[in-house]
Formats: sequence, structure tokens, C-alpha cells
Amino acid sequence: MRLARLRKANAAQALDALVVTNPHDWYYLTGFGGEAGALVVGRRSVTLVTDGRFITQANEETSGVGIVQHKAGLYSAVGGFLRGARLGRVGFDPAHVTVAQHKALRRAAGPRCSLKSVSGLVSSLRVKKDPQELAQMRKAAILASEVVEHAIGLLKPGVRELEVAREIEFQMRRRGASGPAFESIVAFGERAALPHARPTAKRLRKNEFVVLDLGAILGHYCSDITRTVYVGTAPKRAKEWYKAVLEAQLAAIAAVRPGVTAGEIDDAARSTLAKYKLDQFFVHSTGHGLGLEVHEDPRVARGQKARLEPGTVITIEPGVYVPGGGGIRIEDDVAVHEDRSEILTRATRDFIEL
Amino acid sequence: MRLARLRKANAAQALDALVVTNPHDWYYLTGFGGEAGALVVGRRSVTLVTDGRFITQANEETSGVGIVQHKAGLYSAVGGFLRGARLGRVGFDPAHVTVAQHKALRRAAGPRCSLKSVSGLVSSLRVKKDPQELAQMRKAAILASEVVEHAIGLLKPGVRELEVAREIEFQMRRRGASGPAFESIVAFGERAALPHARPTAKRLRKNEFVVLDLGAILGHYCSDITRTVYVGTAPKRAKEWYKAVLEAQLAAIAAVRPGVTAGEIDDAARSTLAKYKLDQFFVHSTGHGLGLEVHEDPRVARGQKARLEPGTVITIEPGVYVPGGGGIRIEDDVAVHEDRSEILTRATRDFIEL
Repeated sequence: MRLARLRKANAAQALDALVVTNPHDWYYLTGFGGEAGALVVGRRSVTLVTDGRFITQANEETSGVGIVQHKAGLYSAVGGFLRGARLGRVGFDPAHVTVAQHKALRRAAGPRCSLKSVSGLVSSLRVKKDPQELAQMRKAAILASEVVEHAIGLLKPGVRELEVAREIEFQMRRRGASGPAFESIVAFGERAALPHARPTAKRLRKNEFVVLDLGAILGHYCSDITRTVYVGTAPKRAKEWYKAVLEAQLAAIAAVRPGVTAGEIDDAARSTLAKYKLDQFFVHSTGHGLGLEVHEDPRVARGQKARLEPGTVITIEPGVYVPGGGGIRIEDDVAVHEDRSEILTRATRDFIEL
Repeated sequence: MRLARLRKANAAQALDALVVTNPHDWYYLTGFGGEAGALVVGRRSVTLVTDGRFITQANEETSGVGIVQHKAGLYSAVGGFLRGARLGRVGFDPAHVTVAQHKALRRAAGPRCSLKSVSGLVSSLRVKKDPQELAQMRKAAILASEVVEHAIGLLKPGVRELEVAREIEFQMRRRGASGPAFESIVAFGERAALPHARPTAKRLRKNEFVVLDLGAILGHYCSDITRTVYVGTAPKRAKEWYKAVLEAQLAAIAAVRPGVTAGEIDDAARSTLAKYKLDQFFVHSTGHGLGLEVHEDPRVARGQKARLEPGTVITIEPGVYVPGGGGIRIEDDVAVHEDRSEILTRATRDFIEL
């Protein structure tokens, strides 16, 4: 089914074959979960080229896929395969092939093979999740929601960012996750003003914001949630910031429906923050697609023209970051349906003062 | 100092500047630990182009580096910077620039800028660790050794691979690691025959091999260790396999000294296994360089001509994998010194029957 949809897309580009080089793409198409290799999807056959470490796994996890073991360079082997199979017009995704890999592929594929740069054929299929994928993503989102609530319970003055981070990852795995979808963010006080803070040995003090941003991988699918709480009694200004970010997030969520562009979702959040003169502190985009990867299509950013379609899952995560003053971000995972949107994450967004 | 060495390498390639696109490379050169951006190292100036999420962090972590915030595409912004700075001959590493990024860079850099593919200028500097780096790598290696010994203590019949994996990562963080260097491998029984097995819900039974392969990141530097134990009383065949792998590992370690090629190290392990007719089951290379990345130069594989030099750290990790019969791998981290080699990891390699 997925292969049939891809072959249709290949045909529309007049490709004899597509070389799939993103591990998430080949997992989506074949179920092969190994990290190294390349998949060649031809008009009738599918071939996985991989090395000795993954041959047994490939045989176990796939069916109907030819498996070729290479011993020297992967891209030379793939090029040799294309040449041997006399494939004429072969696509590759320029976002997932380096300049060096392209050179090796080009050289080995021989003069009869023409390589065509074709962006996102598989990732555009992946945007629209099927019911099984959505069911898995609900579970991953609920798992992350439980873990963020557990982590809020650990926030006592004196605890270190790193201690909370390691408990987060332990709790994910205890609930069945294969691991975190990205390095968890646990940021106290002025470190909360760094949208991508890495956890440090810093201890929590009274009168600080705490940003917790985490996600789990469960059955290959990712979740992503952020909550911000205040330790102590928040000053009026802090409450106002929080209220503005929450209003921005709710405005963006309310805008989610099929046919709306990703840029319009971003604008709903950004214009709400502008009302409070906080848009200057919103230094990133509103969100991103979510699925097998924690960042995938569509980008939910200024001016993005991609239209939401049923089955798409995106994060909505506006934030404000005031250097020296701390930061606030609120993030949920939202699925687009024909007639409604569905918030997959479940933790409260009420302002919490600990 | 590091920048001075790079500028010498740039000059040898007649480059006006090098665009550094691997995050580990720019951390090595500037201390900037953010994940997104690009560094332009010119003859006199150094400029980091990054997005709003990382500006505060970049200001905190670097000195003497110009910081430019981009709002749309990174590579277009870098190209625009090259054009504005009137840089003529600019290098990039083809292993760390995708075809799509190259196109954006090319377009924005304008006709006066010529982009040159130059492989590994920074990664070749990184091969030779300085005393501070070696000190950090010793700590990371000892940490991993302690964790692997702790994990062996958890191996009771009934325990699940995933339970051991999550305890491994918890113990790493408890000892100060920022996280695992890669997804830990905990493989029981026939799963031990998959060199890159991911932990599953499988429970440990009597009379099985267990392969534990883990590494920690401590202060940005990686370690990597593997131990294999047997649960129960091992059959004679299993003991012979273990003995052969250990002999192969010791032979490879004994071959480590400055001036020897990486291929000769690989050959020392491989020819030892051949003596026991087990080389057919050794389906990967003998090791890899280790440092800021868990896989970096040099590759310790068949035919590799790179010569070991003092300051290099490599893993030595031969293994045999018998489909259906289990697998054995023994891995240590080894530093090359002028007059000797140093094994950084510390766990016993005696054959353990639990």
C-alpha cells in the first residue's frame, strides 16, 4: 500500500527507481529498523543494500525485499546495483544525500544512469498518518504527558536540572518507550530563556520558571510536549507572560483544520503575542510535523504554504524568552481530522505555582 | 590554537575561508554547543550563523566569534554572508553538506565565490587529542566501565532487555554523563547474534549469551565498551568462541603503536579469528576513532591506510555472530601514545558465567 503510493509518485516524476536514504523513510516503507543502508524502490522490485551488521535483522523484519550485502562503501555499492539493474532515471532526495555520497553514487552508477534530485517523495507520504499510526501516536503522547506530570512532582528547591532529566528518561522507558525522541530540556530560571537549553548541574531555587520539554519514542513514533511552571509565587509580570503564551497556543490550536496553511497556524500564535508586544521574544517557529521523526513535514512557520490535511500531526509550541528574565513555552501535539482537531497530549495547561 | 591549526590547513588548500557544518567540529573550534548553525572560519575572523534559539547560548559560550542571526534558511544566510564578505575561494566538507544545502549555498554565495569540496580538515585535527581531551576521555571510559559492571549485576533470569537498558542509562546520568553516546545494546540469546540489536521486551533465560554495548558522553567526550557474559554454565563451544574473540582483541590491542596503519590493527584481529575459522562470522570492522563523536576518524577496518599517531583514541571490538547461536563481542577504548598504548576502559575481560 505504502509502496504502491510511492510508485505512483515515482511514476509522476518518470523515475525508474528511487533511492531512499533516510532510515525513517525505509522503515515506513518496509519495516526495516536498521540504521545503515539504502533502499532502491523500482517499478516492480524493492532492494535493500546494507552491511553485515544488519543482514539478519533485515531478513527478519522485511518481506518481499531483496537484500544485498555490501562490504566496502555503501553508495558505491548502490551505484553498482543501479548500473547492474540497468536503471535509467533514478531519483534521490537531496536533503538526505551528502555531496560526498552523491559523488560516489554518480561515479558507480555509470553513464547510462541519470540521477535526479527529487525532494520529499516519501516524507510527503508520511505526512498523512493512517489510523494505526495515529493510534500509536496517541499512546506516545499520553506517555509523554504522564512523564511531564511526574517530572513536575520532582521540582523541589535544590534539585538539579540533570537529576530531573535522568528521571524523565527513566520514567519514559519504564512506561515502555524505546527512548527519548530528543535530549530532554529541563531549564531553571534564566536558563529557561534558552529555547534549547541542555540540562546542567544547576540547582532549582525559589522564584524561578522551569521549562520541561520532552518526548518519547514508543513503537517507533514520537511525541513532544512542553510545560512551564513557576516555583514560588509568581510576580504579576510572569503571570501575564504565561497567560499570553497560553492564549497564543490556544489561538493556534483553534486555527487547526484541513485546508488551512501551516503559515496561518504560525500567524495565529504570533499575532496573539504581538497584541501583548511579546512577539519580539518569540524567537522560533510555532511548531513542526511529528511522526516517525520528531521534526518532519510540515514546518509550522511564518509563510509556510503547505495546507494541513487529515491525518497530519503537528506540534504547537509558542514561547517567549526574555534574556535574564526566564522563558515560557507551552507545547501540545495536535492531529488534524476531516471535521475537527484532536489534542493528543493530555497534561494540564493551568498556570502552576509550586 | 585549534583555530590556528585549522587556518594553516585552510592556507594549504588556498582557501579564503572554510564553512564548518558539523556541530562537533564547531564545538571543537569555538566551544559553541548548539545544534544548529554554521561556522565560517576566515583568514582573520570567525563567524557563527545560527537562529534565534541559539543566540543567547552562542554569546555565552564563545568569545572572539562574530554571531549572525538568520531568520529564513541557514544555507542561504551563510551564502549571503560569504557574498557580503567578498570571500573568493571557500571550502566545505562534502560529508557534512547535503546536495540540497549545497544548492542553497551555491545560489546565495553569488558568482564571485567558488565553493571547494575539501574533506575532513577539522576532523583530521580532531584525531590527535590533547592532554585535556585525553583526561576527559579517561573519565568517560571509566564511567562506562563502571556502568557495564553494574549492568552485569542485573542479569538474572527473567529480567528484560529493556529493563537493563533503562537502568544503564539511568546509571550513566547518575554518574554525571550528559547521556548515552548511542542507543545501548542489551542483547540476550539469539538476539546477541545481531551486532546492532535494539533492546526489546525479551526476558533473560538460562544458557544464553548476553552482549552489553554502551557508551557515555561526559563533558562532551564519548566512551564505548562492550562485554559479553554467559548466563549458566557455558558449553565448550561457547567458551572456545569467547577465547578466540578475546585473543583477537588482545592481538589487535598489542598491535597498537604510532605509525601502524588502521588496516593492520584490523588485520591483527581478523587473522586471529581466521586461525579458528571464525572470521566468516566477524561481519563488521575492528573499530573506529572515538572522541567528541562516537564514530570518528580513523576507521579501523580492512585496508585502511591511515597511520596511528600519538593522541588518537580508537575502539577495538572484534566479534563473532553465529545466526541462531548467539554472539560475542569484546570492546575497549585504546589511546595511542608515543611509546605505548593505554587502555582507557577498565572492566574485566575474564569469561563470566553467571
